[in-house]
Amino acid sequence: MKKQPTKANFYPVILAGGRGTRFWPLSRKRMAKQLLPLNSKKSMIQETVERLAPLADKKHFWVITNDDLALPIANQLRGLPKQQIVAEPVGRNTAPAIGLAAFILERFDPTAVLGLFPSDHVTANEAQFRKDIAKAVALAAAGENIVVLGIKPTRAETGYGYIEVGEQYERGVMRVRRFTEKPNAEKAQEFLESVHYFWNSGVFVWGARTLANALREHLRETAPFLEQIAASYGTKDFTRTFAKLYPKCENISVDYAVLEPRSAKGERSSNIFCIPANWGWNDLGSWAALFEHRAAEQQLTDNENVVSSKGTFTHDAGGNFVHAPKKFVAVVGVKDLVVVETDDALLITTRNNAQDVGKVVKFLDEKKLHKLV
Amino acid sequence: MKKQPTKANFYPVILAGGRGTRFWPLSRKRMAKQLLPLNSKKSMIQETVERLAPLADKKHFWVITNDDLALPIANQLRGLPKQQIVAEPVGRNTAPAIGLAAFILERFDPTAVLGLFPSDHVTANEAQFRKDIAKAVALAAAGENIVVLGIKPTRAETGYGYIEVGEQYERGVMRVRRFTEKPNAEKAQEFLESVHYFWNSGVFVWGARTLANALREHLRETAPFLEQIAASYGTKDFTRTFAKLYPKCENISVDYAVLEPRSAKGERSSNIFCIPANWGWNDLGSWAALFEHRAAEQQLTDNENVVSSKGTFTHDAGGNFVHAPKKFVAVVGVKDLVVVETDDALLITTRNNAQDVGKVVKFLDEKKLHKLV
Repeated sequence: MKKQPTKANFYPVILAGGRGTRFWPLSRKRMAKQLLPLNSKKSMIQETVERLAPLADKKHFWVITNDDLALPIANQLRGLPKQQIVAEPVGRNTAPAIGLAAFILERFDPTAVLGLFPSDHVTANEAQFRKDIAKAVALAAAGENIVVLGIKPTRAETGYGYIEVGEQYERGVMRVRRFTEKPNAEKAQEFLESVHYFWNSGVFVWGARTLANALREHLRETAPFLEQIAASYGTKDFTRTFAKLYPKCENISVDYAVLEPRSAKGERSSNIFCIPANWGWNDLGSWAALFEHRAAEQQLTDNENVVSSKGTFTHDAGGNFVHAPKKFVAVVGVKDLVVVETDDALLITTRNNAQDVGKVVKFLDEKKLHKLV
Repeated sequence: MKKQPTKANFYPVILAGGRGTRFWPLSRKRMAKQLLPLNSKKSMIQETVERLAPLADKKHFWVITNDDLALPIANQLRGLPKQQIVAEPVGRNTAPAIGLAAFILERFDPTAVLGLFPSDHVTANEAQFRKDIAKAVALAAAGENIVVLGIKPTRAETGYGYIEVGEQYERGVMRVRRFTEKPNAEKAQEFLESVHYFWNSGVFVWGARTLANALREHLRETAPFLEQIAASYGTKDFTRTFAKLYPKCENISVDYAVLEPRSAKGERSSNIFCIPANWGWNDLGSWAALFEHRAAEQQLTDNENVVSSKGTFTHDAGGNFVHAPKKFVAVVGVKDLVVVETDDALLITTRNNAQDVGKVVKFLDEKKLHKLV
């Protein structure tokens, strides 16, 4: 692909602390969803980095993760600076995570523009993605602007947060009126039919200083801890300071901490913008979502199946997702199942029940079956 | 258990040449159903031998099988004489198999009484089984009688042959009027409601001479081949003679070759008797039958499952059969499935489709995927 002009002050910050229990038994504490090759032969986080690589210097990438995942992530992302793969001593949601990155970068490069990226989403149209991100970076760099990438809803989804937009600011950029929590089914249907609502993709772009100032304003107790940790970054005190102060930070999302209070001020005074995105986005939230993604990609009919195996026989079977890459798989007379096999576990459920897989992990946690989680 | 008086001239002949493809992927060419521990920690054929052991000298046991299974069977039945585990050079159904045993035994012991036993059936009440067999042996030894053990039908089964009985001969012994091929559903229902019909258990008892003479009368072309093979038994020519002549024998069941022509003569002249048996018999014809057998044994409710695994989590799941003994198994939101895993294969089907598992084996045969069959 064509190398796009490097944004000298653009810093992608990849959030990779999630556990992704809904992909059990493939996902584990040390092999979370973002480390799995769900969409291609590369893992989700490898795809995330490669998608962004033309937009930023490799030295500008940051990854925020946890102790369980830091090493496996470093192994998958060998081109990135190891010291910028940061393991949180405890999980504190997105506001402290991205906030820490903002305070660190503000010290090194006051003009730094941060992009916040989930590490485990699919983006089919990468060229369009980069075009939108480049536009967001330019917009964020032009002032104290916050840019969120919004996905046009394609179903009445109750599992996502929504962005309500107001007037157009410029071509392809809308002002954000407010952020909305996960809606009920009725509201979700209303949002689907409106032109004013977008799914919150979790991709945000803003200046390090803008974000740092927003946190100083809205998270008055937490911001000083993050500034102290940031001041110790690169010194021998960092690990100790991080471990001591980070647990004291509020456990809060960046949307809730920074964006909602600001957008609540009303449309006119808001400096929050939404770029409606059309990348073939998919957050692959469950085995069912992965089935649908692959079925669409492979243009499967209702009588076909998504099977990873060493050889397959199907008879009178359709809509099944089977992952057993080392086995010959025979599927006879069943519909809409999800069956996933690993060396130590076997999951048998349906596409409709795929969101309940977390219950298995909860059970395993409770029973302290650590090897299985 | 109490040792019953050894019948000095009773010879159990165990038929173990079946492939049992309906237990794929557990059953294979070299590990057929009768070699699997489906009912206990012992294999079906080990259970068959142990059940009969109090009735006959170990040196009197014969096993008729094929080249693929002879060695694994010998390994499982170390107490039996190796030379009496006979591998047919080709499969020729039950008449030549049991006939060969009859011609061999007739030469060694003209008073020999043969019992023909399937190697892969369940018998819950073994004491009652031995009582019935002892009675059958006595009846067969008393004259040129043929005794078949009949199972009282418990459902309108269309997959079995039936025995129609006439008048009572003595307490617990009926005269056989005729043998009936697998009936249609209407007939099967009629048989279920009648007191005159029994399932053919495949267990027969008769004198070696009686059987040999019956074959000489009814299988005029085949009997001389069997006599020649029998004459070579114990000499260095046996293997060559067996391989040369056995393929020339008719491919026919003992029921069809001997019993139906004789019973067709009419009730009065018949020397065929039926002992109605009540052993908790089950032929375990499929994964579904095995599920039902285990569910009854374990007194499971509809919301419970038969699972062989290293740990299990179930949620909103009932009536499933899962065999994955090396794995932790999670079953969520599914009903009446059959899932069976081995080191190289994974079967996913339903209890209702369990009889279609043979289609998988047919496919694997056609594709010459020999390792999997």
